[in-house]
Amino acid sequence: MVKYAVLLEYNGSDFHGWQIQANTRTVQGCLEYALSKFANEAIKTITAGRTDTGVHALNQVVHFTSSAKRNLSGWINGVNANLPMSIRVKQVAIVEDDFDARFSALHRTYHYYLLNQPLSSPIFEKLIGWYHRELDLDAMQKAIKQLIGKQDFSSFRAANCQASSPIRDMIAAEVEKSGSILRFTFTANAFLYHMVRNIVGALIYVGNGGLSQDAFADLIFAKNRAKAPPTFMADGLYLAHVGYTNNVFNQNEPKGWLFGGNVLG
Amino acid sequence: MVKYAVLLEYNGSDFHGWQIQANTRTVQGCLEYALSKFANEAIKTITAGRTDTGVHALNQVVHFTSSAKRNLSGWINGVNANLPMSIRVKQVAIVEDDFDARFSALHRTYHYYLLNQPLSSPIFEKLIGWYHRELDLDAMQKAIKQLIGKQDFSSFRAANCQASSPIRDMIAAEVEKSGSILRFTFTANAFLYHMVRNIVGALIYVGNGGLSQDAFADLIFAKNRAKAPPTFMADGLYLAHVGYTNNVFNQNEPKGWLFGGNVLG
Repeated sequence: MVKYAVLLEYNGSDFHGWQIQANTRTVQGCLEYALSKFANEAIKTITAGRTDTGVHALNQVVHFTSSAKRNLSGWINGVNANLPMSIRVKQVAIVEDDFDARFSALHRTYHYYLLNQPLSSPIFEKLIGWYHRELDLDAMQKAIKQLIGKQDFSSFRAANCQASSPIRDMIAAEVEKSGSILRFTFTANAFLYHMVRNIVGALIYVGNGGLSQDAFADLIFAKNRAKAPPTFMADGLYLAHVGYTNNVFNQNEPKGWLFGGNVLG
Repeated sequence: MVKYAVLLEYNGSDFHGWQIQANTRTVQGCLEYALSKFANEAIKTITAGRTDTGVHALNQVVHFTSSAKRNLSGWINGVNANLPMSIRVKQVAIVEDDFDARFSALHRTYHYYLLNQPLSSPIFEKLIGWYHRELDLDAMQKAIKQLIGKQDFSSFRAANCQASSPIRDMIAAEVEKSGSILRFTFTANAFLYHMVRNIVGALIYVGNGGLSQDAFADLIFAKNRAKAPPTFMADGLYLAHVGYTNNVFNQNEPKGWLFGGNVLG
């Protein structure tokens, strides 16, 4: 048996989330079908991040083991031939037996793209979040820094989150603007269920004047989801990067923006 | 009766083209439904460019007449409320009686976005064309200049094109690259059916070495569709701008790129 890691890109709007379910189209379901068909044996996968319905991935990482004899480019081409076009295998690597896509991951980076203009974008429907009123970027940039550090993120944790602890180490958090598009970047050791969408929802309240800097600080300190603004739409959320001690892939955190920023509206 | 012009953006992958048809979802069908519902009277529309199935529009122009008393922002909000999110009315203007969205148009600009890398993009499926082999940008930039001028475009005209003449005046034609994305820009007085997709298909043959500069010149001169490479996919094609003698809208030809160019792959 050989252990492999896979680097994936997918469009989350085509699936009911990552996790395999009976009678439902999921990314894991499609991937395990394609791997098993190509290897001619049943293959199960473990992922770095179980993305929710509508959440996209630029660089998802998965591992599996197989006894099938195939070379690495064979895996890429053979699995892609059995996948829908909304999922692509970008790289496959042989990894050590102790590698685990989930537990070996040191940190994950998510991007959230938000279109901030009066009208939403028909072209990028499902690919970008949208907020119609003006947002104060400076206030959001100031508030987002309060999220950095190892702390209790209960105020941004969905009720049905199954994690054993609400403590997460937020390594980096920033929001930048290009044209009418904002991009949020969050890097943490791991994320709670709906954590990024809940944080983006609260930061939008900071941007529209609904939450002051102090009120945002109080919200973090309250450790109470009931006190926070609602979960924001999934559309603009992307798993951008998963970091490991040893680089499994020739893969860097994406610096370029997905969207041009200056043509919309 | 007042005559109005409408500036529209839409995602063509959600429709069977522009033109209204019974029992089929088309852009014109959805727009006339929304206009008629908001105005509470039957409204018919005339468009600057009848885009084909899968073709998108950043700035489509349409006119209609109505006796309904509504202000301009009322038209925008009221019609958008009755449209799917894959179509947005961006601007509405009152125009002179002699304005015709189709016949008053002096020129149209189309963009074609092409992803040129070994793997296609799951995120931008249906929004960007894709070619997997390496392309010689210099050769394509040289060849595309041969298209400029008033000439017979029969070699790039679909068999079922209903235009009375194959002569079109190509005012500008260029191809640029950013990251792994190419953008073609074509401005002409008007376009034949499938003309841009047929030209892009032939330019890809120039880029992959299948057609020399001389062979591309011969192809134009042949005025024979049967001698040309096949029609390229609709996915990356956008109606970007329609120009009139007097600017109807506060609308410029989009200069910014829709896609970032450096994050894919």
